[in-house]
Amino acid sequence: MRLRFSTPFSALFFALLFALLLALFSVLNRSADIPAGENKPAGVRNIILLIGDGMGPAQFGLLESYARRAPNSIYQGRPTAVSQLMQQGKVLLSDTGPHDVLVTDSACSATQLAIGEASGSEMIGLNARGDRVETILQKAKRAGMRTGLVSDTRITHATPAAFAAHQPHRRFENEIAADLLTTAPDLMLSGGLRYFLPQDAENISAELQKNISAAQLTLKSKRTDQRNLLSEAQQQGYALAFSREQLARQQHLPLLGLFASSAMNDAIYARQNPDSAQPDLNELTRKALQLLGTSEHGFFLMVEGGQIDWAAHNNDAGALLHELLRFDAAIQEVVNWAADRDDTLVVLTADHETGGFGFSYSAHDVPVPRMLPGNGMRGQAFAPNYNFAPHSLLDRLFAQKKGYYRLWGDASSDGKNGLPTADSLMAEVNAALDFPFSRTQAERVLRRDPNPHFDPQTDDPAGATQPHIEDFSDFYVYREERYLNALARELASAQSVVWSTGTHTAAPVPVVISGPEPILQNFQGFTRHAELGHQLKALIKTD
Amino acid sequence: MRLRFSTPFSALFFALLFALLLALFSVLNRSADIPAGENKPAGVRNIILLIGDGMGPAQFGLLESYARRAPNSIYQGRPTAVSQLMQQGKVLLSDTGPHDVLVTDSACSATQLAIGEASGSEMIGLNARGDRVETILQKAKRAGMRTGLVSDTRITHATPAAFAAHQPHRRFENEIAADLLTTAPDLMLSGGLRYFLPQDAENISAELQKNISAAQLTLKSKRTDQRNLLSEAQQQGYALAFSREQLARQQHLPLLGLFASSAMNDAIYARQNPDSAQPDLNELTRKALQLLGTSEHGFFLMVEGGQIDWAAHNNDAGALLHELLRFDAAIQEVVNWAADRDDTLVVLTADHETGGFGFSYSAHDVPVPRMLPGNGMRGQAFAPNYNFAPHSLLDRLFAQKKGYYRLWGDASSDGKNGLPTADSLMAEVNAALDFPFSRTQAERVLRRDPNPHFDPQTDDPAGATQPHIEDFSDFYVYREERYLNALARELASAQSVVWSTGTHTAAPVPVVISGPEPILQNFQGFTRHAELGHQLKALIKTD
Repeated sequence: MRLRFSTPFSALFFALLFALLLALFSVLNRSADIPAGENKPAGVRNIILLIGDGMGPAQFGLLESYARRAPNSIYQGRPTAVSQLMQQGKVLLSDTGPHDVLVTDSACSATQLAIGEASGSEMIGLNARGDRVETILQKAKRAGMRTGLVSDTRITHATPAAFAAHQPHRRFENEIAADLLTTAPDLMLSGGLRYFLPQDAENISAELQKNISAAQLTLKSKRTDQRNLLSEAQQQGYALAFSREQLARQQHLPLLGLFASSAMNDAIYARQNPDSAQPDLNELTRKALQLLGTSEHGFFLMVEGGQIDWAAHNNDAGALLHELLRFDAAIQEVVNWAADRDDTLVVLTADHETGGFGFSYSAHDVPVPRMLPGNGMRGQAFAPNYNFAPHSLLDRLFAQKKGYYRLWGDASSDGKNGLPTADSLMAEVNAALDFPFSRTQAERVLRRDPNPHFDPQTDDPAGATQPHIEDFSDFYVYREERYLNALARELASAQSVVWSTGTHTAAPVPVVISGPEPILQNFQGFTRHAELGHQLKALIKTD
Repeated sequence: MRLRFSTPFSALFFALLFALLLALFSVLNRSADIPAGENKPAGVRNIILLIGDGMGPAQFGLLESYARRAPNSIYQGRPTAVSQLMQQGKVLLSDTGPHDVLVTDSACSATQLAIGEASGSEMIGLNARGDRVETILQKAKRAGMRTGLVSDTRITHATPAAFAAHQPHRRFENEIAADLLTTAPDLMLSGGLRYFLPQDAENISAELQKNISAAQLTLKSKRTDQRNLLSEAQQQGYALAFSREQLARQQHLPLLGLFASSAMNDAIYARQNPDSAQPDLNELTRKALQLLGTSEHGFFLMVEGGQIDWAAHNNDAGALLHELLRFDAAIQEVVNWAADRDDTLVVLTADHETGGFGFSYSAHDVPVPRMLPGNGMRGQAFAPNYNFAPHSLLDRLFAQKKGYYRLWGDASSDGKNGLPTADSLMAEVNAALDFPFSRTQAERVLRRDPNPHFDPQTDDPAGATQPHIEDFSDFYVYREERYLNALARELASAQSVVWSTGTHTAAPVPVVISGPEPILQNFQGFTRHAELGHQLKALIKTD
């Protein structure tokens, strides 16, 4: 039997083919909802770029595994927003690497997406030569579109910065804050207040002080000058918001919302404090779509799920899951908003993978053999040689009550010399996690070693020793945060979770593109972020 | 400015739309080469399933990074076969997990692809209840199609076995060999001779002895009975081949080619010994296409790049690259063969990711700052904080002359008590790798620790101690092969390469599907291997 018939061509067949093509096109093109007679070639009026910072393939997998396989999944059979996008659109893989090296940081990666050219490590809005290049946001603005940046980190952090600033290094956050006001996106919603306050932070208007205080934020500056970027923004016409309540009142652009002194709350904390003064990422996204969506000439919006990366740097699997869930809730806002539109391109990708996260099989707690009813067992028990990670782990990861970073801080405040004791650490971990943690494990986490990269000429003396990480130690570069990685190593066997690094990997990242089918045809195969950015930028016509 | 015009519907427009649709269809559908008037709905006559064992997203990335970024890439600007397939077709992501756990082994994963149902860990051709289920190969055979299995491991190994055998556990390779002859695919090309020879291996015909000897293979059996599966195969009508030369002479099906006693040669060895008696994976693939391609009713062919997984289990980055290159060469045979056809579905995927491979950034050997010419540098040097892994590493990995497994064996034969000495190991590593390796490093690799999972009641006494792996030790389950993982840890900083595990991860794997567009429409979004297998199986009509 052949798989399919083959029929000679005939006039009848041509008619059938045409019908098939039309049907195919209807399925592919979401504009099919438009009544017959109003079909038109789909254009792209709006571009929404969603960046999961550190959301590599394994992180996509964690979200989907949780949603589909966790016995008590909060999705209850519903698809994730990510998989809804995938179902509507198409999937590519992309190489995120800089100009001349294999692994990228967030600044360079976002820059490549933003400027559509190869860039250098840790640069903001510059190409590999160090030249300033117009970003997609700047081009959109020049084309008369509205523009917006939303992040759950801070607005001066690498990813949002790369779309509206030009600096030789991501660390220049004060200069980035000033650049942001020069570029002047219509909407900026994130943390980072401390880069907008003058060095003498109390030298601001009484009204600003009142609003900041009402948002329960501190008047603390990181600036080394007296520039008051809040009042400068007001002079440029920006309305300001510092809390959920103040945000709700704003109905016009331009709008600058700074909801935290530095980073916004982590996702576990945000879930547990729904009445916090700080709005969460999905609310920021909804507001952005509400305000930008009325634009006469379309808009460009970038939304970052930025703390996925931070949880993964800490090798904190429970926090990682919660950050992915938070980002997915923001993506759901976008999917809902774009559902009946044929003029909007939605692009979801990551800037890189972080942590080398994975579930893995181990020799720890191998399940006992059992008999199965099937006719192929030949009297043999079902007896896998290894522990392949039961689904219940997903619920236990979701049950985590505190991220490692916050947990460590709390254990330290109960400890001595700014560090936890074995007892305070043991107590904190057992209170926050559904994985038993012994005093012996706590003692192992607290070990320190000499730092082979310590240079007494240039280095902080505190760097002479560092928390103990034996294997792949050189890839755990963030000094005292290595404690969190050491904690992850102790929990690995019980969680069936492994990590390869405290930094990023070069794994290619998924790109999910949904929107008008003719536009999608341009995106295909294995791409790289500079090329992807170039293609997105080219969709904006400025004539 | 808006991004795109919007024009009211008109009759003219409808005509343009139709033209656009036809043009679109021509681009999408490779049957466009057929002269106008002979266009027909593309059917799927042949299904070619390519499985990169352990070829997760990061492994796809290594291949592409090497091809595109290595200063002396052997691709010299040509695209990989993998990226050619991606460019032609579409990409999905797939969850490879078994019925009830998160991480899969190769047997279960290939079984899910083969039977189109969820399966259990380490099972061959059974569903999660333990029931035998018809595989896609068996269904294809029932439908009158030709069938073939090709692998560079051995034909009784998990991946090929899952398509033509039904066993409660992958370890039953003798029973699998017998099952293979019961299922009787038209073509089987791989290693695994020792499972086909009777326990008293010299009790075979003089002609067989002569041919096996001519292939430089040993008469060694793993069977515990006197079944001579070679003569049984001959009685079933199979022609046999044991060497490249013998393979070349065979022009008819059915054909059983067993080119190694156990596993076939690794890719580095194969590249360095092009005149070996053993054909390489691309040659097996070419032969399979030549013989199956003339089938009157189409064919199903599975080709496995199986040693990608083994190199990754060993955390051997250079060997991993070479295995990926070998598999890509086999895929190129498929791409070439299918280039002018409109009746063939090519599916490339992996069964899982192995090793948690990644390039990563480190504090090792941070490059010195340098000035850049660009106008955005503000007088600042280009001074990344970390070592982001230069492209030259790719050439240095390619330059590896021996896989760790073979290298370890050679160092051991120069050593004592079946183990290398620090000196013999140092010498072997420095001879084989383009990364300097010190005596201190060799000594560290040779450390041993107590095995916490050792059970004196049931375990081999040799398991009381094991090579030293400190972090994530429970995920290094293969006893003495942990030495190779320890070696990888010593080389990690210099290679900028990290690994998270000695086993597999649950990272979702790419699925690349190329073929007739109407068929492709059925494959979309985030899938799982059991569903993918179900869809592929459903393409075969048996009425």
